[in-house]
Amino acid sequence: MSKPLILISNDDGYQAPGIRFLIDCMKSIGDVVVVAPEDAQSAMSHAITIKDPLRFRTHTDTESYKEYTLNGTPVDCIKFALHRLMSRKPDIVVSGINHGSNASINIIYSGTMAAATEAAMGGIPSIGFSILDYDSKANFTYARKYIINLVEHVLKDGLGENIALNVNFPKEKGKEYKGLKVCRQAKAYWKEDFDERLDPRNGQPYYWLKGTFTVYENNESTDEWALENYYVSLVPIQFDFTAYNKINELKNWEKS
Amino acid sequence: MSKPLILISNDDGYQAPGIRFLIDCMKSIGDVVVVAPEDAQSAMSHAITIKDPLRFRTHTDTESYKEYTLNGTPVDCIKFALHRLMSRKPDIVVSGINHGSNASINIIYSGTMAAATEAAMGGIPSIGFSILDYDSKANFTYARKYIINLVEHVLKDGLGENIALNVNFPKEKGKEYKGLKVCRQAKAYWKEDFDERLDPRNGQPYYWLKGTFTVYENNESTDEWALENYYVSLVPIQFDFTAYNKINELKNWEKS
Repeated sequence: MSKPLILISNDDGYQAPGIRFLIDCMKSIGDVVVVAPEDAQSAMSHAITIKDPLRFRTHTDTESYKEYTLNGTPVDCIKFALHRLMSRKPDIVVSGINHGSNASINIIYSGTMAAATEAAMGGIPSIGFSILDYDSKANFTYARKYIINLVEHVLKDGLGENIALNVNFPKEKGKEYKGLKVCRQAKAYWKEDFDERLDPRNGQPYYWLKGTFTVYENNESTDEWALENYYVSLVPIQFDFTAYNKINELKNWEKS
Repeated sequence: MSKPLILISNDDGYQAPGIRFLIDCMKSIGDVVVVAPEDAQSAMSHAITIKDPLRFRTHTDTESYKEYTLNGTPVDCIKFALHRLMSRKPDIVVSGINHGSNASINIIYSGTMAAATEAAMGGIPSIGFSILDYDSKANFTYARKYIINLVEHVLKDGLGENIALNVNFPKEKGKEYKGLKVCRQAKAYWKEDFDERLDPRNGQPYYWLKGTFTVYENNESTDEWALENYYVSLVPIQFDFTAYNKINELKNWEKS
């Protein structure tokens, strides 16, 4: 029987420790194709490159392991992998491990999760992994068994049409995580601040975005609660944005 | 009584005909603040600028009309407007008119809709407008009364917590639209193709993304059906991506 075919991407770029660890985990499960951004593409969300041409580089090209980089966004990488580079559809797409949380509303800004969502839009089950640790020396040791279990679960059972999983790991505290929690996305908001500085060339102001993440609820059913309590959070996600409970109410507006 | 305060942005940049038309419509309703990207930012989705500093330019600064541009994405514009530039919270945020459809799954790539969503995340009711016409000479004439009606409706009745509206206009055919349809997002997918060319400098290939939009259903409840039948489509949207119907099923995975 042929081994599962696994496509990997991320948004921190192909050299990030998170993707190197994920590649290592996936090699124990199947044949691996990596198509990752050349450079860090954090906070690129579901952006695609339409004004500039895309170029790719081949780093490795063997039977069981192929690695390419692309000068584009995470979503570009998935599109290019699925529609140009790969001759056979992957059995699963995994993205990450992102350095930094993609829990709660962070998902909307995340290139890592956009790569996973793009795959799910194409009918391929996918998982995005993130860890709440920006350090390039983040310790992924305790994440390994969860990653392998989840990927094997998805390969065996599937996920159903157009579903992706958003999996976040707490920053490790020198001991095993407490377990896996299937959650919903917590309600939260980035309260933004802009750090103003003066340009030495012309004395004009420029700004750096500098937000504070604020969680609006502390409910045991949310991903933020799970992470706060040292659980691995898993949120199944979909990409129909329709607010179904508003449709009937707004139907009245059709008349005026 | 003070006039409503209206914040306007888009993703085609401040010079695009769509935003100029929208500004003209909004001036008839309230005091207007424009914070739009300096340049076209199509397909930027919910991206934010974190690697480069943000700079803004003031074009107009009067009591009833202010216009600024920012060297960032549509979401940067909304964050900068709400958290830095404006002394009072706007009563509504409108984005567009985008040149090109944001119906169905296009919403996920759209900077125009990301600007509207970012506002809704901050608790401000918002509407994104788009027209199915890429031409810079697109005719917006028949859109005006819908835009004004919808904005007045939202100012009067509100939209409820964290809801935005995704409004699309068909390409005009020299006659009034048939009416407004409140819809759900149609199931669709971009089948991508990559146009390969050779770089004259080094003979290496480069690629342009060139997709074909494929709608999977032809149901009267969808935005694609409404637009196909010359109606104005309105989809209420929200940004909780949780696939609630999968949570119970996945709870079993917590044990293994």
